[in-house]
Amino acid sequence: MADARITLLTDFGTADGYVAAMKGVIATMAPDARVDDAAHDVAPGDVRAACWTLEAYWHRYPPGTIHVIVVDPGVGGTRRALAAHADGRLFVAPDNGVLTRVFGAHAWQAVSIEPDSGEISATFHGRDVFAPAAARLACGATLDELGTPIDDPVMLPMQPPVRGEGVVRGSVEHVDRFGNLITNVPGDWCAHAAAVRVAGVDVGPVRARYVDAQRGALLALVGSAGVVEIAVRDGSAADTLGVGRDAEVDIQVEINSPASGGPRR
Amino acid sequence: MADARITLLTDFGTADGYVAAMKGVIATMAPDARVDDAAHDVAPGDVRAACWTLEAYWHRYPPGTIHVIVVDPGVGGTRRALAAHADGRLFVAPDNGVLTRVFGAHAWQAVSIEPDSGEISATFHGRDVFAPAAARLACGATLDELGTPIDDPVMLPMQPPVRGEGVVRGSVEHVDRFGNLITNVPGDWCAHAAAVRVAGVDVGPVRARYVDAQRGALLALVGSAGVVEIAVRDGSAADTLGVGRDAEVDIQVEINSPASGGPRR
Amino acid sequence: MADARITLLTDFGTADGYVAAMKGVIATMAPDARVDDAAHDVAPGDVRAACWTLEAYWHRYPPGTIHVIVVDPGVGGTRRALAAHADGRLFVAPDNGVLTRVFGAHAWQAVSIEPDSGEISATFHGRDVFAPAAARLACGATLDELGTPIDDPVMLPMQPPVRGEGVVRGSVEHVDRFGNLITNVPGDWCAHAAAVRVAGVDVGPVRARYVDAQRGALLALVGSAGVVEIAVRDGSAADTLGVGRDAEVDIQVEINSPASGGPRR
Repeated sequence: MADARITLLTDFGTADGYVAAMKGVIATMAPDARVDDAAHDVAPGDVRAACWTLEAYWHRYPPGTIHVIVVDPGVGGTRRALAAHADGRLFVAPDNGVLTRVFGAHAWQAVSIEPDSGEISATFHGRDVFAPAAARLACGATLDELGTPIDDPVMLPMQPPVRGEGVVRGSVEHVDRFGNLITNVPGDWCAHAAAVRVAGVDVGPVRARYVDAQRGALLALVGSAGVVEIAVRDGSAADTLGVGRDAEVDIQVEINSPASGGPRR
Repeated sequence: MADARITLLTDFGTADGYVAAMKGVIATMAPDARVDDAAHDVAPGDVRAACWTLEAYWHRYPPGTIHVIVVDPGVGGTRRALAAHADGRLFVAPDNGVLTRVFGAHAWQAVSIEPDSGEISATFHGRDVFAPAAARLACGATLDELGTPIDDPVMLPMQPPVRGEGVVRGSVEHVDRFGNLITNVPGDWCAHAAAVRVAGVDVGPVRARYVDAQRGALLALVGSAGVVEIAVRDGSAADTLGVGRDAEVDIQVEINSPASGGPRR
Repeated sequence: MADARITLLTDFGTADGYVAAMKGVIATMAPDARVDDAAHDVAPGDVRAACWTLEAYWHRYPPGTIHVIVVDPGVGGTRRALAAHADGRLFVAPDNGVLTRVFGAHAWQAVSIEPDSGEISATFHGRDVFAPAAARLACGATLDELGTPIDDPVMLPMQPPVRGEGVVRGSVEHVDRFGNLITNVPGDWCAHAAAVRVAGVDVGPVRARYVDAQRGALLALVGSAGVVEIAVRDGSAADTLGVGRDAEVDIQVEINSPASGGPRR
């Protein structure tokens, strides 16, 4: 088999040596694996943000990629450590809901990892459990060799958008580095959207592109995740509006809109 | 050909999954390419900072390296996407002036990329245009295979320093993480500089080394980019002086200085 | 020999092109070397933090790894540049004490690097001295080929914990991204610790796990470095207590505790 590829998503930041400790463990156990930094500045303990962030890239990697996610506020407690398989990719993560979007959209298998190493700290399973498990997968181990099958992973409660008479009510699901307010409303629900309101402010219809707004002006558009985003051209919608995650978003749509069905990926 | 090498410079930050989405696309299309993170915390949309940052490293990489730069406030508008060749390296970037320093100092060729993929978002050409183009170059595609030659790339207006009677007037071009104020004045213009003033404050002659100043004291010296920098030893000149990019810098030089000619690289 | 592996720890941040300049030099001189980012947001010039951070990962990497550390406030002065060997790994760093913990715990050899390149800036030895030295080691050079043996590296003053009658007095050695206050007190000194006080605040006994405290509550536990840490479950102990490095930590222990001896690794 070709050299395995591992990605790392953590809340460890870029100042301490925690990410490097994981890389060192992998380099020791699976020296031929390629390791990619996905992102390390997820807000400390923000499982929901990590769940969203993972969705941006995991399926862009080729089948066989091993995605490791360590945002793990429950480390050392009773939460299980998971290794999983979905849509051809492998996942290694705490059982805290960070894989909710993966499991919600694809057939999956998962095991509860039973670490074989004797020395496991109470505070750093990225180094002591998850990196070793990823390295073993990179060396060809199967899920079953890593642990015991489970069928009840923790799933985060998702807030689906609601479609009413001529209006879609959704909410902000993620705020990115640019201050874009990324909602849970599928773009194809809004092909005929007349007006988008967020936190009581009208930001106009859903536009095609950033440049359809003036510099510094608010606008709504369908972003790279396929959902409606509120943005400020060359600025931050989060700062301009003073709102963040879970802010309410109302979208006026034509009642006889051809859009149909539930959210799609 | 040996495995291609790709570098990534973006303003995507280190918390979201945008950088990883680009890496995933490259891993899928050009699995043998090596991908280096250059820097991802360029200020959002700051093309000028990215232009300066690129200059710090692109020519340190070996010929054949593919440098990808995605600081792209005009994404989704009419700006072109460029692939270019200069001094043996390849570049993939929006046509917004980020390659000004490369094009200004070397012979170059460039094409306007014509993406062959059908699915291109309006907001994330890093993933949908630039990463695929870099991957194709990594797999051996030529510039001509990627698009149509152009000869009129966008160039940022550069503010060259001005040499007067016994004085050079320049300005701050970049402020780095350490708070160093990096000017546009070539170091070899200042071999006999008696006094450097920035924002009205005298910081003394051009010194040879940081340690020629007291701790906490301002000083001028010729930095690693070959231009005059204003620094504070073990501190931040930007914080100490409260100035930033475009601040005026006056340098007293001997009238009969042997220095001559224009800026050099 | 297999492809060499190099890690980079710097205070260069993730916005400028300094890290990439080092990577480019290595890519040119040692194209087959694998380069891992360890961390680049060490506080500017904070040699002590880098010394602590290095300890988190260097021995997790396999023997033969070349660890490069460039936190170098004395650049351009008289401080030497070191290449060293300890416990099977190689190190390249300024002679400013950043290797204190490595040298303090292992037999070592070190040389003062004599750069063979003619063009060395006064401000950026990461690019001009340390990266080339690492690349030469990656290509098989020996320490002796890089410079002249030295036996008097700069060592940082370490503050060991002090054991009194029923009490251990230590201090905070590092504050990590999570706001954990990581002390210099070995965990095995505290097996029978009744009470931990930091900055005058009682944080209770040494617990086994984060989840042994309520959310938002202070606790002490033995962290991943094997020393006592003060943490806030799902929060920041540094913010909660308003203290940082060098804060005093008192730990009540049983007088007849079986723990013995000095600090261990």
